Amino acid sequence: MPLAFLLTNAPDSTNLAVAMLIIFGSAKLLEELFERLNLPGIVGEILAGILIGPSVLGWITPNEFTTTMAGLGVMFLLFHVGLEVEADELMKVGGTAVAVGVLGVVVPFFAGWGLSLLWGKPNMESVFVGVALTATSVGITASVLAAKGLLNQTASKIILAAAVVDDILALLLLGVVTSVAAGTVDIIELALTSLMAVIFIALVARWGRHAMGHVVRFLKGKFRVGEGEFSLAMVLLFGLAALSVKIGVAAIIGAFLAGMALAEAAPRRVHDLNHGVTELLVPFFLANIGLHLQLAVFRDSSTLWLGLALIPVAIASKIVGCGLGASGHGRIVALRVGLGMIPRGEFCMVVAQVGLGLNVLTTNTYGVIVLMAIVAAMMTPPLLKLAFRGGAEEISSQNEPSMPS
Amino acid sequence: MPLAFLLTNAPDSTNLAVAMLIIFGSAKLLEELFERLNLPGIVGEILAGILIGPSVLGWITPNEFTTTMAGLGVMFLLFHVGLEVEADELMKVGGTAVAVGVLGVVVPFFAGWGLSLLWGKPNMESVFVGVALTATSVGITASVLAAKGLLNQTASKIILAAAVVDDILALLLLGVVTSVAAGTVDIIELALTSLMAVIFIALVARWGRHAMGHVVRFLKGKFRVGEGEFSLAMVLLFGLAALSVKIGVAAIIGAFLAGMALAEAAPRRVHDLNHGVTELLVPFFLANIGLHLQLAVFRDSSTLWLGLALIPVAIASKIVGCGLGASGHGRIVALRVGLGMIPRGEFCMVVAQVGLGLNVLTTNTYGVIVLMAIVAAMMTPPLLKLAFRGGAEEISSQNEPSMPS
Repeated sequence: MPLAFLLTNAPDSTNLAVAMLIIFGSAKLLEELFERLNLPGIVGEILAGILIGPSVLGWITPNEFTTTMAGLGVMFLLFHVGLEVEADELMKVGGTAVAVGVLGVVVPFFAGWGLSLLWGKPNMESVFVGVALTATSVGITASVLAAKGLLNQTASKIILAAAVVDDILALLLLGVVTSVAAGTVDIIELALTSLMAVIFIALVARWGRHAMGHVVRFLKGKFRVGEGEFSLAMVLLFGLAALSVKIGVAAIIGAFLAGMALAEAAPRRVHDLNHGVTELLVPFFLANIGLHLQLAVFRDSSTLWLGLALIPVAIASKIVGCGLGASGHGRIVALRVGLGMIPRGEFCMVVAQVGLGLNVLTTNTYGVIVLMAIVAAMMTPPLLKLAFRGGAEEISSQNEPSMPS
Repeated sequence: MPLAFLLTNAPDSTNLAVAMLIIFGSAKLLEELFERLNLPGIVGEILAGILIGPSVLGWITPNEFTTTMAGLGVMFLLFHVGLEVEADELMKVGGTAVAVGVLGVVVPFFAGWGLSLLWGKPNMESVFVGVALTATSVGITASVLAAKGLLNQTASKIILAAAVVDDILALLLLGVVTSVAAGTVDIIELALTSLMAVIFIALVARWGRHAMGHVVRFLKGKFRVGEGEFSLAMVLLFGLAALSVKIGVAAIIGAFLAGMALAEAAPRRVHDLNHGVTELLVPFFLANIGLHLQLAVFRDSSTLWLGLALIPVAIASKIVGCGLGASGHGRIVALRVGLGMIPRGEFCMVVAQVGLGLNVLTTNTYGVIVLMAIVAAMMTPPLLKLAFRGGAEEISSQNEPSMPS
C-alpha cells in the first residue's frame, strides 16, 4: 500500500506530498491575500514562488518535479483558454496578430541588444539578452483574462493569436542565434522548421474544429470507459502538444490549438473535469516563475543597474512594438495588446540556459534576465486590470464570463 | 512562451507532452479495449504499462516523472475513495478490519518466507520475500469498487479499513527487518512510530469530519479566489498526506483520511473538480505498475519457477489470512475481503529496493517480487468482478453507484 518515494525510510524519498503542499498551499494563500488587498492574485502566486524559493526561505529549489508540474500547468492553462475561445474570431484578427507578433519580437530584440551593448557587454552576450526579451509568456495574460471573463474582447483575441506568431519567431531567432554562437548555421533546416510550424498551425486552426466535431459526434455514446470524452480530449491535448514539440514550437501552442478544436464539440462535463485539473496545476506554473529568482548576483552593483535598466526596456519595447502592430484597432486596443504582451517567462529561462551552456552568458547576466522576466510577469496583471477597467472597447464584443468561479 | 523542457533544442528536453501522450493514451486505449472484450479495464491499463515499458516496446523507462505521476495518481484515487465513504460505517467494521489487517500480514509473511527458504534462498533474503508479500496495494481494489459503485458494501468497508491497519503493520515489519539486516535495531523508535501513527489516524478518523464540517461552514462564501473550496480540499489532501509521511505511514493513508473528513462537508463542485484530476492521474498509477516488469531475469529457470510458485502463494495467503479475519461476516464477505486484499504494488517495489540496497536481495529475486506484484494486481479485478457478481450481500447495505461515469 505505501509508495516508494513517500516513505521516509525509502531509498529515494522525495516527499512528493510535502512539495505539493508547500507550492500549492503557499500560492493559493498569497493569491487569496492579494485578492483581499485588491491586488492581482496572480502576482501573489508568483511572489509565493519567490518566498519559498532559494532566495528567501529555501524550502523549494527548482528541480525536475517543479519544472514538470509547471509545464503541465501552463499546458492545461492554454488548453483551457483554447476551449473558451472562438477560432473564427481569432482568424478575423489574423493580420493584426501577425503585425503584433513581428513588431513585438523585432523591437524588444534590438532594444535589449542595444542596452546590453551600452552596458559594455560583449556583442554575443548582448544578442542573447535581446533574444531573451522577445517571447511573451502568454500564460500570465491568459490567466488574468480568463479569470476576469475577458477572453472574447478584441484585444484578448489579438493577444492570443499574436502569441502564437511571437512564439514561432522567437524560437526561430533563438535557433539562428544559437547556431551562430555555436558556429553551425543551417539556414535550410531553420526555414523548414518554420514552414512546418506554420503549416501545422494553419491546418489545425482551420480544420481542427470541424474534424473534432465529426469525431466527437461519431464516438458519442460509443465509449465503454467512464468519462470517455474527457479521455479523448486529453489525448488530443497531449497529442497536439507532442506534435508541436516535434515540429519545433512550444507544447502550449499545441495545447491551445487542441482547446480551440474542442471548443464547440466538447460537452460541458469535459470543461468541468478539465477545470479541476487546471485549478490544481496552474499555481505550479505561476509559483515556478518566482522560484527561479537569484538575488545573490545583484550584490554586484553593475549587474543590479543593468537589471533595473532592463526592466523598463523590456516593458516599453513590448508596449511600443505590439502597440504599433495593433494601432489599426484604435488607441485603447493597442494599449491593451501592448500591455498584454509584456510578460516574459519560461522562454527567458531557456535562452539564459542555452547562453550559459554556450559560455556566451555570465551567471550575472543570467540573473538579470530572470529578474526581468519575474518583474515583467508581476507587473502585467495590475497594468492589465487598469487597462481593461473601462470594460468592452466595442459594443459588438461578447463580454460573457468564461470561467465560472 | 515556450517551455524549457518541451523544446527539442532546449538543454534538458524531456518531452513531457510525449510521455503524457504515450502513458495516458495507451492506458486508456487498452482500458477501452478490455472493457469491450468484457475484461476488467484496469488490467488493460496495467498491461499498457508492460507494453510501453522496458520489457516490450521500451518507449518509457520508469523514472522520476513516472514515479511522481503514479504517486499523485494513487493519492488522488484514495482521496476520491475517501470522499465516497462514510466514516461511521468504516468505524463499525473496525474490529474485523484489525483482524483482517493482522492476519493478512502474518500469513503472507510466513508463507513467503517459508517458500523462499524451500527454494534454498538465504534466510535474510527469504525474510525480505516474506515482507514483500505483506502490504496490500488497495488502490487496485479501490479503483474496481469505485468504478462499479460498490464502495458502500460491507466487504468494501472492511477492505478499506483493513488496508490502513495492513499498511501500518507492513511498514513496521519492514522497519524491523531493515534494522535487523543493517544491524541497528531501535525498538523504542519503532514503537514510537507505530504509536504516533495509530494516534494520528484515530484522531483524524474520529474528529476530522466534524472539524472539517465547521471549517467549511465557517469559510463558506468568504473566499476571494475562485474555487476556494477546491483549494481548501487540496490543501487538506496534501497536508494530511505530508503528515502521514512525516509520521511514518504512507501518503495515501493521509489522502484517504482527508477524503473521509471532507465526504459530507465538501460541495458537489469539489467532487466534480477532483474527479477530473483523478481521471487524469489514475492511469499513470496503473500503468506504472506494469512499467516495472523485468522479463530478462526469468531466463534463469530456477528464478522462473520461484516466480511461478510465489504467485499462487501470494494470492492464497491473502485469501486465507484476510478471509479468516473476516469470517465473522459470513463466507461471501470473507471471500470478497480475501480477494480484495490480494493486490500488491508499490510496497513490493520499496521492499525489493531496500533489499537490493542492503545487498540481501539478488536482482533475480527483485524481478520475482515485481512479477508477483504485477500478476497479483492483474488477477484481482476479474476475481473481484466474479465475487461481487451476486450483488449486495445484505439487504441493509446501500448499493448506490458512487462514481458517475
